[in-house]
Amino acid sequence: MSSAMKVAVFGLGSMGFGMAESLIRAGHTTYGFDPIPDQCDRLVTVGGVSANLEHIGAELDAAVLVVLNAAQTESVLFGDDRKSGLVPTLKAGTVVLSCATVPPDFAKAMAARCAEYEVHYLDSPISGGSIKAREGALSIMASGTTDAFNAAHPILEATSEKVFILGDAAGAGSAMKAVNQMLAGVHIAAMAEAMTFGITQGVEPETFVDVITQCAGNSWMLENRAPHIVAGDYTPHSSINIWPKDLGIVLAAAKSSGFSAPITETALAQFVEAADNGLGLEDDAAVAKVYASKAGVQLPGVT
Amino acid sequence: MSSAMKVAVFGLGSMGFGMAESLIRAGHTTYGFDPIPDQCDRLVTVGGVSANLEHIGAELDAAVLVVLNAAQTESVLFGDDRKSGLVPTLKAGTVVLSCATVPPDFAKAMAARCAEYEVHYLDSPISGGSIKAREGALSIMASGTTDAFNAAHPILEATSEKVFILGDAAGAGSAMKAVNQMLAGVHIAAMAEAMTFGITQGVEPETFVDVITQCAGNSWMLENRAPHIVAGDYTPHSSINIWPKDLGIVLAAAKSSGFSAPITETALAQFVEAADNGLGLEDDAAVAKVYASKAGVQLPGVT
Repeated sequence: MSSAMKVAVFGLGSMGFGMAESLIRAGHTTYGFDPIPDQCDRLVTVGGVSANLEHIGAELDAAVLVVLNAAQTESVLFGDDRKSGLVPTLKAGTVVLSCATVPPDFAKAMAARCAEYEVHYLDSPISGGSIKAREGALSIMASGTTDAFNAAHPILEATSEKVFILGDAAGAGSAMKAVNQMLAGVHIAAMAEAMTFGITQGVEPETFVDVITQCAGNSWMLENRAPHIVAGDYTPHSSINIWPKDLGIVLAAAKSSGFSAPITETALAQFVEAADNGLGLEDDAAVAKVYASKAGVQLPGVT
Repeated sequence: MSSAMKVAVFGLGSMGFGMAESLIRAGHTTYGFDPIPDQCDRLVTVGGVSANLEHIGAELDAAVLVVLNAAQTESVLFGDDRKSGLVPTLKAGTVVLSCATVPPDFAKAMAARCAEYEVHYLDSPISGGSIKAREGALSIMASGTTDAFNAAHPILEATSEKVFILGDAAGAGSAMKAVNQMLAGVHIAAMAEAMTFGITQGVEPETFVDVITQCAGNSWMLENRAPHIVAGDYTPHSSINIWPKDLGIVLAAAKSSGFSAPITETALAQFVEAADNGLGLEDDAAVAKVYASKAGVQLPGVT
């Protein structure tokens, strides 16, 4: 095992909390920060350390950002006034692991600003869901300097099963994450479209899952999400609201490269419609409700 | 092993020829019919039996139709004049296995017309590709009467690895196949969209395959087709031209059920554009060429 580090985790949602638990398990001194005080208290009950952020910046070896988006990432790193924030308080050689899904250009910009403080920035979006976060078994799509990888090594070791090393500069990790989210989002919406279409043709949702998961129409997302529809359980593992954000990042990057992504645009429209229908906080499989309601078909457990 | 049957296979393309080979290997007397005489001769060289169709109808235990579409299926079964054709020449109790992708309502209609001649009809679309056809390892999405399943049993055993029993009447098999093709077609086009988008963001096609196949963006089709793009090899395993046909069947069935399938429509538009650009006979992974050409990016091995 690597020697123990002092690590601050920012954002204690299901992903961040799970990663913090994995860091504690690996023996690292782990501080947790979240706008919801209860989440911080909860982390202390499982071995996290309580601290005032203003006092510990200079002691940290690493900061792991598992916040929602680019705006929150920038706010933690440099403050809302773009001058204060975490980074100016860190000692030289500290590494920032930025795990949110952000535009590739944003990752490049953050890395450059961290470098001004001799702080390493690892562009390191994550994939795998909350269960794998808790198990320390995430996939991480990482790019950054050798120094950033070296400094981040114990953190990657504690939190991930697979690290894809995608390049020696920030941006490449986020580019790969954008590609992955593009497919993941399209596959969820396509699953919903196909399952509800199947119902109109007499194919029961349970039969759909049994057969398609063994056939050429299968996808990782179908295997993972279609059972939520069969169970009628829309407890959010990953919510509808994630997709307007992530597919928005994809389409903004596409647009600035002159790339047209019509299937992604069409999938995005389904998630936006779901959010507009008040489903934003439900599991993303609830995009099937938009299709079902339009087609006048019944989903299991939905009244 | 089941006792040997006399079986005629109609349509000796890559799927039908492979199924015929599997039937020969299982010890069945196998006649092959195809508009291309060379294909019939080729089957004889691997153990098929040459025959005049007009003389053997009454001797057959089973007919397996692996033709392109509903029109060809109907033409073989009942002739172009809707009165002649194979079925009137068959003895009572013979089973027809209809393997083409056809509309569910068409399958129901064919089963009813076969029943007038006491001929069993198994709605039995296939999935798995030409290699699995040759290995006798297809997946078959089957529905039909118990008599139809019983009569077809030795054929299913010789040609498939998995038989999904989807109901006691024709139509259910074709409905499930439509659902599968909907997803398969969308996933191929989405893979092409994501891979070319990735190129605009600096993600190399080879890296795309390495990473995404291990992440949440994976699909069966991505794993199967994306390597064709990396290799720059568009030898058709399954051609672009399949998709306007199969997604057309899906969308016609959707329309007649009042179901709106916007993602499928958008994927179909990409295949239609590929066909319009002269790519119809290339492997369906060539839909990526449409994206690449619009975005001005280079695919491996494409000049």
